[in-house]
Amino acid sequence: MTRTAHQSVTIVDVAKAAGVSKSTAGRALTGSDEVSARTRDKVVRVAAELGYRPNGVARSMITGNTETVGVVIPDMSNRFFSAALQSIARTIRQHGYELLVSSTEGEPALERRSVEVLSTKRVDGLIVAPVLGADTDHLRRLADSGTALVLLDRPAPKVSGTSFVSVDNVEASRLAVDHLIGLGHRHIGIISEARYDATVTRAAEPSPTAHRPSTMRLAGYVRAMTDAGLEVRPEHIAHSAYSSAASYAATTRLLNVTPQVTAIYCTDNVLSVGAFAALQDSGCHCPRDISLVGFDDHDWAPLVRPRLTVVAQPTEVIGVTAAEDLLTAIADPAREPATHLLPARLVTRDSTAPPGLSLIPPT
Amino acid sequence: MTRTAHQSVTIVDVAKAAGVSKSTAGRALTGSDEVSARTRDKVVRVAAELGYRPNGVARSMITGNTETVGVVIPDMSNRFFSAALQSIARTIRQHGYELLVSSTEGEPALERRSVEVLSTKRVDGLIVAPVLGADTDHLRRLADSGTALVLLDRPAPKVSGTSFVSVDNVEASRLAVDHLIGLGHRHIGIISEARYDATVTRAAEPSPTAHRPSTMRLAGYVRAMTDAGLEVRPEHIAHSAYSSAASYAATTRLLNVTPQVTAIYCTDNVLSVGAFAALQDSGCHCPRDISLVGFDDHDWAPLVRPRLTVVAQPTEVIGVTAAEDLLTAIADPAREPATHLLPARLVTRDSTAPPGLSLIPPT
Repeated sequence: MTRTAHQSVTIVDVAKAAGVSKSTAGRALTGSDEVSARTRDKVVRVAAELGYRPNGVARSMITGNTETVGVVIPDMSNRFFSAALQSIARTIRQHGYELLVSSTEGEPALERRSVEVLSTKRVDGLIVAPVLGADTDHLRRLADSGTALVLLDRPAPKVSGTSFVSVDNVEASRLAVDHLIGLGHRHIGIISEARYDATVTRAAEPSPTAHRPSTMRLAGYVRAMTDAGLEVRPEHIAHSAYSSAASYAATTRLLNVTPQVTAIYCTDNVLSVGAFAALQDSGCHCPRDISLVGFDDHDWAPLVRPRLTVVAQPTEVIGVTAAEDLLTAIADPAREPATHLLPARLVTRDSTAPPGLSLIPPT
Repeated sequence: MTRTAHQSVTIVDVAKAAGVSKSTAGRALTGSDEVSARTRDKVVRVAAELGYRPNGVARSMITGNTETVGVVIPDMSNRFFSAALQSIARTIRQHGYELLVSSTEGEPALERRSVEVLSTKRVDGLIVAPVLGADTDHLRRLADSGTALVLLDRPAPKVSGTSFVSVDNVEASRLAVDHLIGLGHRHIGIISEARYDATVTRAAEPSPTAHRPSTMRLAGYVRAMTDAGLEVRPEHIAHSAYSSAASYAATTRLLNVTPQVTAIYCTDNVLSVGAFAALQDSGCHCPRDISLVGFDDHDWAPLVRPRLTVVAQPTEVIGVTAAEDLLTAIADPAREPATHLLPARLVTRDSTAPPGLSLIPPT
């Protein structure tokens, strides 16, 4: 079984060595379940021993199918995306597909390039978490051309006919804010990538998928405060860019400018790092002076003191749902697209408590 | 410029609409620098407006080049790999390449599949962090077939002719252990994925790239202890599987079984989460009773109390070096492969201090 010219090994050689027909060998190597597990294992082993490498480019010209799925996300180092990726990978692999991932670093031009590269590599479908606020024409064209497409975490307003999978951001914020209100807080600050403007007000009305996650989370805060009869004060809404340094600055400013605030809700996992650090450095005692709710259940949330209360996304379920919806779309291009808004849950730890005695009486 | 059948737009249509020749349009769309930036921008814009999608499969059959690089890593949620990926992506994009990533979850079979899929997609080169202890025949065959290949973080002993990029693990451990010895510690425990056996003893001798990172890190500990005239005690070496739960258990066991230990060095970022949590729950005061050095400079290291002293890998430089070496290998297949062992640095925070008064006198 020693050969040096691996490139010249053909499917016929594999079939002969495994004692099966050429078509059985082909089906075994593409993972078809028309072949018994035993035969498949034998063919795969023999193919590996012979050094057989299928010519994927040539094969995909013939079959039109490469058994690969592409995922395009903005940030591989974000815990939410890396966790979702793992469950997407596990799910699609169970169905015999392989996963190729591309990261856009939040740059619209890189997203267009990533989508382009993956389409020219003839992936069978794409899961995309679009860059926020960017033009989505390339996604619309992709969907219109019949490529299976699922949108993850962020909607793309002008792209129709695709499924959308996300946590229910409005309800996620309601969990956090209702928890704080239930503890007795009335002046609740929020650290948000979104700005408080008319979009948020509209987003707080029922139409819960048209906007970016940060807008929906701010809208959920507005809705929960309003429903509880509490005033939404613009000065309690601290805007932050997407970095822990920006969130550190926004949190520090919020603490300095609005001493009546007794609780802060931070709406993103990257922002939560900066908010927690700012609170530590502020001299405020958490939770006696200030309660804090973070977003996403990072591995450091139970390591810090006080242990951090967070709104946890169902990351595993989000990944599985996106993958399964995409596989359905690949199998049946005419299937009805769906919107999956999955429920968050609150993980209560030590960073939230009833408001303590403050030196400044609440106004 | 409205067309509905995007699929039928050809390069000739793009060239005509942009007012350039077909070959200029082709060069512009593949990012060739034989075309002026202005022409390139115009052609790209016109192609996007027309909805032109190059047939990458057909094109790569002709040119043999897809301007893509594949990266195969074991774990996308590991901070080291996600950070290295970002700098690999940035570097290769500066050279006009796009990145496709596949994760193996540490499973040898998934690694073979990932490498297979990326080779059949005709990537121009691969950066692989091999699954530890697995068969590397598929990597050897890939290298032998002339595919540009760079090994990241983990060597593949039988694969010759490829470059290897990693932190200098032996010296990284020496930084941690020398720091602790300098503070006055004599009984230093270690949490390690490697087992203390003859391999480690051999690895502690000069031959610093033949083994997996955990073995090299344990070897560095052994060498630093030995060089300082301190005894290496097998009961101070706590083996842990690759999970924070396993590391929590290993650290707890180490604290209970060896009360003479006054400092612990934890050799991986996933393991550091469990070690820190175990120390918090143990009732020991850190650093008065026990000093702790973690591995990799995670974002939570300065958030916890005491702030964690760590050995930081030069993640950015590792990523850039791997990417640049791969681009060199793509441009010049005959280039001499190199071994890049990059220096770690110690980030001293509050979790390390001179050993305090212990209730149990050192033996």
